[in-house]
Amino acid sequence: MAVNFKQGDRKSVTIQVTDQMVRQFADMSGDHNPIHLDDNYAKTTRFGRRIAHGMICGALISRTLSDTLGDGGIYLGQTLKFLHPIFIDDVVTIELHVANFREERGIGLIETIVKKQNGEVAVKGEATIMTGDVIQAKK
Amino acid sequence: MAVNFKQGDRKSVTIQVTDQMVRQFADMSGDHNPIHLDDNYAKTTRFGRRIAHGMICGALISRTLSDTLGDGGIYLGQTLKFLHPIFIDDVVTIELHVANFREERGIGLIETIVKKQNGEVAVKGEATIMTGDVIQAKK
Repeated sequence: MAVNFKQGDRKSVTIQVTDQMVRQFADMSGDHNPIHLDDNYAKTTRFGRRIAHGMICGALISRTLSDTLGDGGIYLGQTLKFLHPIFIDDVVTIELHVANFREERGIGLIETIVKKQNGEVAVKGEATIMTGDVIQAKK
Repeated sequence: MAVNFKQGDRKSVTIQVTDQMVRQFADMSGDHNPIHLDDNYAKTTRFGRRIAHGMICGALISRTLSDTLGDGGIYLGQTLKFLHPIFIDDVVTIELHVANFREERGIGLIETIVKKQNGEVAVKGEATIMTGDVIQAKK
């Protein structure tokens, strides 16, 4: 099972962050902070309305890596900078750019950007992945 | 609403990573990679059994930050290194250590470690948070 990318590749996936996703994330993680779940509370905050959990973007980046770069890879690391909040029903595009791929070591550095429908970068960071082929070859 | 931590503080929360959490995370994120969901497929991989999505640990770190450091903080960033896989029903302890807190700027650097019941460090990284008080004071 091989990964299917090379240095310079760009991939993207567009996803709507729904109320259902926010509630599923809250149940799964146990993070029931009212800023994510309670309209009346959220109105009293600086955001003025409910925001999605920042780590939902981490989950969507992880899903996009798995979907577009091949499922034989091993996820070694991720950095995330949360720059702008995501509101309920925002449409985000997860953009991946294979910034560096050292084929002999099988290590890929992937720039990971989450952009909102208004062009704002909500999250930026970098993923590090190792291709499954190299793992197999090392055995 | 104030954060409730100071430099040097350590907090931890212990959570079991259940099959239900893995399936909720798959539904929420759209990451249906069979390594997480299909016992028969997972048996054919190097892991020999299903593993949890790595980013579930990101979600649990985020939840623990929110639960133990006060919900007035803003999550500015997170780094994650995935060192060991989490298997279904593993019990993990999310350990936070306030490594640095510059009160005048309201910026905290929190070491974030996810340890398995066998002592293995599954995930390590660092969170950056800004306290809500400073945000308010700046207005």
